[in-house]
Parts: sequence; structure tokens; C-alpha cells
Amino acid sequence: MNVKFAGLDIGGKNFTVIAGPCAIENEDQMMQASHAVKAAGADVLRGGIYKLRTRPDAFQGLGRDAFPMVKTAKSKTTLPFLTEITSVSQVEALVDIADFIMVGTRNMYNYDLLKELGRVRIPIVLKRGMSAKVEEWINAAEYIARGGNDKIILCERGIRTFETATRNTLDLAGALWVKQRSSLPVIVDPSHGTGIPALIPGMAAETLAAGLDGVMVEVHPMPSAALSDGAQALTTEQFADMMVKLRVLGEVCGRPLTSPGSKA
Amino acid sequence: MNVKFAGLDIGGKNFTVIAGPCAIENEDQMMQASHAVKAAGADVLRGGIYKLRTRPDAFQGLGRDAFPMVKTAKSKTTLPFLTEITSVSQVEALVDIADFIMVGTRNMYNYDLLKELGRVRIPIVLKRGMSAKVEEWINAAEYIARGGNDKIILCERGIRTFETATRNTLDLAGALWVKQRSSLPVIVDPSHGTGIPALIPGMAAETLAAGLDGVMVEVHPMPSAALSDGAQALTTEQFADMMVKLRVLGEVCGRPLTSPGSKA
Amino acid sequence: MNVKFAGLDIGGKNFTVIAGPCAIENEDQMMQASHAVKAAGADVLRGGIYKLRTRPDAFQGLGRDAFPMVKTAKSKTTLPFLTEITSVSQVEALVDIADFIMVGTRNMYNYDLLKELGRVRIPIVLKRGMSAKVEEWINAAEYIARGGNDKIILCERGIRTFETATRNTLDLAGALWVKQRSSLPVIVDPSHGTGIPALIPGMAAETLAAGLDGVMVEVHPMPSAALSDGAQALTTEQFADMMVKLRVLGEVCGRPLTSPGSKA
Amino acid sequence: MNVKFAGLDIGGKNFTVIAGPCAIENEDQMMQASHAVKAAGADVLRGGIYKLRTRPDAFQGLGRDAFPMVKTAKSKTTLPFLTEITSVSQVEALVDIADFIMVGTRNMYNYDLLKELGRVRIPIVLKRGMSAKVEEWINAAEYIARGGNDKIILCERGIRTFETATRNTLDLAGALWVKQRSSLPVIVDPSHGTGIPALIPGMAAETLAAGLDGVMVEVHPMPSAALSDGAQALTTEQFADMMVKLRVLGEVCGRPLTSPGSKA
Repeated sequence: MNVKFAGLDIGGKNFTVIAGPCAIENEDQMMQASHAVKAAGADVLRGGIYKLRTRPDAFQGLGRDAFPMVKTAKSKTTLPFLTEITSVSQVEALVDIADFIMVGTRNMYNYDLLKELGRVRIPIVLKRGMSAKVEEWINAAEYIARGGNDKIILCERGIRTFETATRNTLDLAGALWVKQRSSLPVIVDPSHGTGIPALIPGMAAETLAAGLDGVMVEVHPMPSAALSDGAQALTTEQFADMMVKLRVLGEVCGRPLTSPGSKA
Repeated sequence: MNVKFAGLDIGGKNFTVIAGPCAIENEDQMMQASHAVKAAGADVLRGGIYKLRTRPDAFQGLGRDAFPMVKTAKSKTTLPFLTEITSVSQVEALVDIADFIMVGTRNMYNYDLLKELGRVRIPIVLKRGMSAKVEEWINAAEYIARGGNDKIILCERGIRTFETATRNTLDLAGALWVKQRSSLPVIVDPSHGTGIPALIPGMAAETLAAGLDGVMVEVHPMPSAALSDGAQALTTEQFADMMVKLRVLGEVCGRPLTSPGSKA
Repeated sequence: MNVKFAGLDIGGKNFTVIAGPCAIENEDQMMQASHAVKAAGADVLRGGIYKLRTRPDAFQGLGRDAFPMVKTAKSKTTLPFLTEITSVSQVEALVDIADFIMVGTRNMYNYDLLKELGRVRIPIVLKRGMSAKVEEWINAAEYIARGGNDKIILCERGIRTFETATRNTLDLAGALWVKQRSSLPVIVDPSHGTGIPALIPGMAAETLAAGLDGVMVEVHPMPSAALSDGAQALTTEQFADMMVKLRVLGEVCGRPLTSPGSKA
Repeated sequence: MNVKFAGLDIGGKNFTVIAGPCAIENEDQMMQASHAVKAAGADVLRGGIYKLRTRPDAFQGLGRDAFPMVKTAKSKTTLPFLTEITSVSQVEALVDIADFIMVGTRNMYNYDLLKELGRVRIPIVLKRGMSAKVEEWINAAEYIARGGNDKIILCERGIRTFETATRNTLDLAGALWVKQRSSLPVIVDPSHGTGIPALIPGMAAETLAAGLDGVMVEVHPMPSAALSDGAQALTTEQFADMMVKLRVLGEVCGRPLTSPGSKA
């Protein structure tokens, strides 16, 4: 079932593009990234407020300090906003400020959280667990759906394998398998899926060519200075280039991008 | 650092044995299993109150209905009790009824839950995520420790690999690696680690011989009738046999079992 | 470095398509498949003469009995022919009858065989080992190149992971990583990579869209009757449909197919 | 079926120990290692003559130059000798000089080689492929057995997984699974299985405690100077210590070592 929300029809004719910084770091960074992704034609702005990090002493996100920056970015760009939830206790606040709530790979099996998200009425982007079988991923979505929330978008973000050249192994065939067997839209995150900017545009093109429904990519005005996952972010220029190519490919494949983008 | 609690010194000289049913199903089953594991010389009684299941329509545990059964089993056997937590909202109730709280493989990355468990004062058994690197597992323990709870026991329960003959691939070398690099006790769950009863006694013997600190095994009075994971449970007789062998091996390896067991 | 051979320029402007049956079974089957792939516009005809099978009692290929069928198919279709080598002892005979020699996934680490293939002067298609890191795959190609044979084409065919819904996990990002780091053409085998016919056209489109150099697919006139890997073969009709779509996509992406195909 | 050869009964009552350098480098190194493993009570001397290396420019073994060193070592220690075969062309020469021929992990799927080894009459140690399922491993042994050679010993050496702290993931449960389902002796190589000397004695003890049939370990007089895999070799002192502990454990577990060892 398509997810119709905020003027979008995800899983419908158009190919959806979600973009923005991994973590919101400060107003400047957030506004630069937001304007750039809007100008290039993204449909949804992403930005991390709460970050799950392997080490407890790593940067864990700005938390509520990011809320005013989100409000500014949304009003200036008119883009809907997506962010990750990391605790059941954040549900209410995030429903208030965000248009899409994302469940990250580490929480795909957090059924307690999924049940709570079954009670909200905004769309949930459910990332695949890094070692989840595709069947388990579909079952996890069912935990949300049973609560009454049918606005679910699945997001493939790479699985753990023996290969270490790429950060994860992007399982596009698995994503397509799920697309063919469930009624849910399926998008792909090539940023976490590969961890290598040079591979991201190619993987985004593949996602479109395969008939999947969208991509989510990390964009940072200055990746080398990022507080989180900088190494895998596209620069705003790289993102704009990628969008030009996706736009052409989308026309041919019958999956046009929604927005023509503007000259920023 | 050893975990001294409930008269035990886990990580100390003795090899610790935790046993009981995967899920508490009813009073009869719980009492039969409890008496059997006590008689065979187990140190801690385990039993699932809340179950995390891949499918939302699978048996999810008795929840609070199991509490009276737990109380009876504890008072009759005088064994400390371990159970799994599946939601932050259960912390208070479980601290009240259990002596050890277990974090299952699906929640190893649930840092929100781990932080909460840093605030309690009973020991936490932290299972390794099914795709967690050993470094990440140690970091997850750090999320608990930072909250002030230094009673942490790590539990290897098998990782996900391409092999399908066994349910998971039990990574005993990884467990030993962690034992050598952290100060925490490390135990092994060969029930989930293999999923095959015929392999469990051998894997338990290995755990002891390698110098690890204990095992946790599933025991059910009638595995074929179990509501959850029956195929991998030992019968009470198989468990008693295994304990006899572990007792001999423990003497030789300088890791004696705590209790001689009784004739039930 | 492109592989120019038999009128093709693999790794050059055109996107290369290799197709045919997994194993040559009899003259009828081989001729039907050959005419169909030729008609749909394939560039190279594939067909297994010697098969590596996990079980020693499974069909191991026709061996030399297939040679006359290969000669007939080549002369009727004028397509160059590719087949897999499974023993050093076959080198001479295969150089005689084939235009491309393929090293299968099980032999990627068979350096003895690779060194022998360094001495021949026809192109080698080197499949990635099912658990080979991309670095190891490039190193394996180096074993061939050192012998003086610089006509090497790399073929991604899926790696082994925990996922069981697909036969293997097709690592398109890994293939693209290799393409960006080596000078060799890189093609993809979505038949073995997924094992599911419904996923093959999507994965072939992805391969083209990502900028990789070609695909190899299994085509059988009657997959349900195939002696080897039937479940993953495309019918001749499915293959023809796929080629129509690849032709359109190739034009847009600047990677046209070589042949327009004919009405068979 | 036990493998009775060279005075040993592998798979019988005794626990078998195979030890020696990864690669034979020169006469001094080989003799020091040989005397040390003999003195500590090993049953079989191992030493690499032909090495399979990922990079074609890495040290590939002394080849025939090692033959005189092998002869000297055998006559001085009276130990039977095991070495790895890397090419069908070596069969005759190795049958002549070695008592056991090993098929390495990279050649487990090299059915052409396995068929040739079915024709010889000395025992074959068949290592598990690094990504081989246990079923495939048993099937590979069948390729040897069908040729008439029933002297086959299986050797678990670790599989490829996402874990990178250890070189491979030693699958002891998989080894035990095979032991319970096939009639072949099963031994374990903790040197390649872990890549970390500090883990090897623990893993060897586990192998014995689980009821498996033996271990193969790499021993080098000066690991830091080794030309191949030095980082994972035990020193002669570490090996002697390990043997003392295995001897005690073997008595208790009813799997005594064959030789008491001598003071060298």
C-alpha cells in the first residue's frame, strides 16, 4: 500500500528522494544542508536529533536543542522532515516535530518500540536490521501495522557480511524480493549501505532501475567536519549531480522525480 | 570483575549453571522444570515471562500472570531467578521479582534500555547481538556500567552466519577473546547457540574447558509440547546427565560446580 | 583494460549480454536455447560442458559428448561461446572449442588452475568466490595476468550470507567497488546471484544503471525440465522481454546493447 | 570409520595432535620445530611445502627444495609427516614423501583434485571450505571416498563471518554436528580458526572436551620471523605448555594423548 502523506505518494508513480545530514550539528550546518537538498529537488529532509552510537562516549545528537533548527529548516524549505527515534519516551515529542519517524537498524527487533509506533498516525520508515532476514523484516512491519498504523515504508540499508571493503553489503535483491512480496513501499539507503560516497550515485541509479521506490542519502555541507558518519556523506555538489542523473533515468524508467529542483 | 550476588561468585572459581524453561507456560511445567534443575545442581533458575518473537501472532509469554508461579518456584527451590526484559516499562516489576535481568540478543543495541538497566542494582546478563562484533558487545556493556551498575555478565549465544545446519554459529573463540580483554564474566548459551539438543552437552563441556564462566541452558519437562523453542530444550534427564559430566570435568579443570545436586 | 575479442569490446561502450543454458543437455535443448538468445540479441552464448556439483552423484555435464553440439550452435548462430573449466586437464580442449573460458566460484582460489589460464590467449571470465573479499578477487585475477593473459573479465555472482530467501546475496556495490579500483571489465550473474527468475530482470537493469559492463544469465527452453539449476533459469520469452527493456535502458544510460536482436 | 595409519588410530580412543610450522623455510627452522613438537608429544609433524597465498607475490613455499629437509625431519623424529597439496600435478611426489596429504580450505570445492586423491592410499585431511556448509563438506569427502580412498579425516578451520577480531569464526558446533552424522574422524585447526595464539590452548581444550578427535596447530621456533602466518603460530614453549594441559584433560575425558612426550 502506498504511503500518501505530506503531499507525497511514496510507492506510487514518483521516485522519492530523502536527504540531509546524518546528525543535526548546529544551525548553520542544518540550514546549508536543507537549502541544498531542497534546491536539488529532494522530497523529504532528514536530520538526526538522537543518535545511536556504538560507543557511549561518542556524539549522541543534540536532542531537544535541535528542535528550533528543525522548525526553521522546515519553514524555510517547506519540506517534510524525517528523523530517527531511539527511545519509546521520544514518541510524543517527535510526532509533534517530525513528519516521518525512522526506526534504525539497531531497533528493528525492538518490538516494544514498534508497538508504540503502531499507535501514531505519521509514516514510519523501518530500516532492516543489519542481520535481519527479509522475512523477519516483513514481520517487524507487522508489529507496527497491528497497532493500526498502516503508513509503513521499508528501507534496506545493507547487511553484515564478511566483506569489509564496503561498510555493509547492500542487498538490493533482498529489497526487490520484499517489494514483490509485500504491499509496502521499499526504499534504499546507499549511504549506510556502502559507506563510500563514490558508490552512492551508482547504487541510487540501481535502486531506481530495479523498480524500487526511493532512496535516502546523507548530505553534509562539509563532510570532513561532520560529527557523525562524515566519511559516507555526499557533498551538496555531489548530491546535486546525482539528482540530475536520477531525474533523467527516472523519466526513462517511468519513475520521475517529484520536483524539478531549483537553481539554489 | 566478578559478579557476587545471591550467594554466587560468577566469574570466580566456580562454574555457574543457569537452567530452566524458555518460557513459563503454566504452574505444572514451571514447577517440574524448577525442581529438576535444582535437583541436578543448577545455580540459577531461568524462565521467560515476556518473550520476543519474530511473528506478532506467536506466543508472547504469560506476562504478569507468571509472577505467582515465579514466586512459588523461588520459594520451593531457593534458587535465584533470571528472566528477560523486553521493555523499559518492565524494569520496576522485574527488579522486584527477579534476581538477574537478561537482555536478549535483539536488544543488545537497544541503548535506551541498557541505560535504564545501569540504574538498577541487580546483575544484568547481556547477550551478544546476533550480528554484533565482540567490540560492540563490550561497548554495549559500557552503556550499562556508565549508569553505575557494575554487575554485568556477558552471554555468547551464537551469531548469524551462512551455516543453516545449526540455528546459529556459536562463537566460543569470540567469547574467549572477550573474556581475555574485559574484566567481565562470560557465559555461553548453547541452547540458542546450536538449536540442537545433541550438541548442547558437548558445547557446555567446551565452555568449561576453555576457561569460560558458565552456561545457560533451556530445560523443559516435555520439550515436544513446549510453546516456545521446544526443539532445542533438553529434557530434565538429559540435563541431569550433562550436569554429572560437567561436575567431573569441572573438578579436573579447577572450575568445580557450586552445588553437588541432590537426588530429586 | 577492455577485453577486445571475437568482435566484442567488453568494458567498452556497449553493455555485453552472455546467455544460454546452465548445462548443455542434448542437441534439441542446446539449439533451442541458442537460437532464442541469438534472436533476442545476446552477444555470447554460454553452455556448461563440465559441471561442478556439490554431490558426486548429481549430473556432471555431458563432457566431450557436448562438443559437436557446441560446434553446431556456434556455426548456426555465429555467436562466440563461453563455457566453464573444472580441471587443468581440460585447458587444451576448451581453448579449441570455446571463445571464453569461465572459472567458477568454487575455483576462484584454485591458483594452480589460474596460473594455467595465464598461458592461454582467449579471455577468462573469473567469477568471484562465494566468500571472497573483493581484494582477494582482484588478487586472483593477478594470478592469471602474471602468466601473460591480460584478457580477464570479472563476474560477480553473489556471496554467501545469512540470508536464505535468495540463493546468494548479489553484491553490486562490491562489483562497482572493483570496477572503480581495477582496470578490468566487471559483469554480473543475477541467475546464480539470486536464484529467483522474478528478480533477474531487475538486477540486470541495476547492473546496467550502475555502470557495470554486462550480465550473464541462464536461459532454458523449459526450465522445469532442466538437469541443473532449472529453478533459476529464464524461459526464452522472459529473456526476450528482459532484452527489450535493457535495450531501452542502455540507450538512455549511454551503454547500448551491441545487437538489435532479430525476430526469431 | 577411524583412520588407522602410521601406527595411529585417528578417531579411536586417543586424541591426535598434529603440529609443526605453517611453511618449511629452511633446515634449521624445520629441525627446531620438529624436535620441539616431538618432545612435547605430537603424533604427526606438519610442514608446508607448497603454499597457497592470496597474493601471487607472497612466499609460495620452498617446493621440492624442502624435500630433503622433510626426509631429515622424519628420520630424526620418527614422526609421520603431513603437508598440503595445491595442484593435481603434485600427487605422485607427495605420496612419496608424505604420510598424510592435506587439502586446504581453498581447495575443498576443487572436485578435480579430490577425485585424484580418491586414487591414492594414504590418508587425506580435508579442511572445510571457508564458506562451506557442513553438508557440502561431507559431500566433498564423498568425492574422495568414491575413488576408493576411505582414509579421510575432516578438519574444521573456521568459517568466514562478519566478525573481524578473530581471523575466522571457529565453528566447533558444526564440527561436532559432522562428527555425529558422518563416520569420519573430525579434528580442529585453532591456529587458522582464530589467528590469535592466546586463544589456541583454550580452543584445543574445547576440541578435546567436546569429543572431537584431534587438533592441528602451527608451531614455529620464532614466530615473529616466520615467512607465513607467523602471527598465529605458537612458540615451542607455548606448545609444550598446551600439551601438558591437554594430557591431563585427555585422561579425565577418556581421550588420552598417544605419547607422553619426552624431555627434549
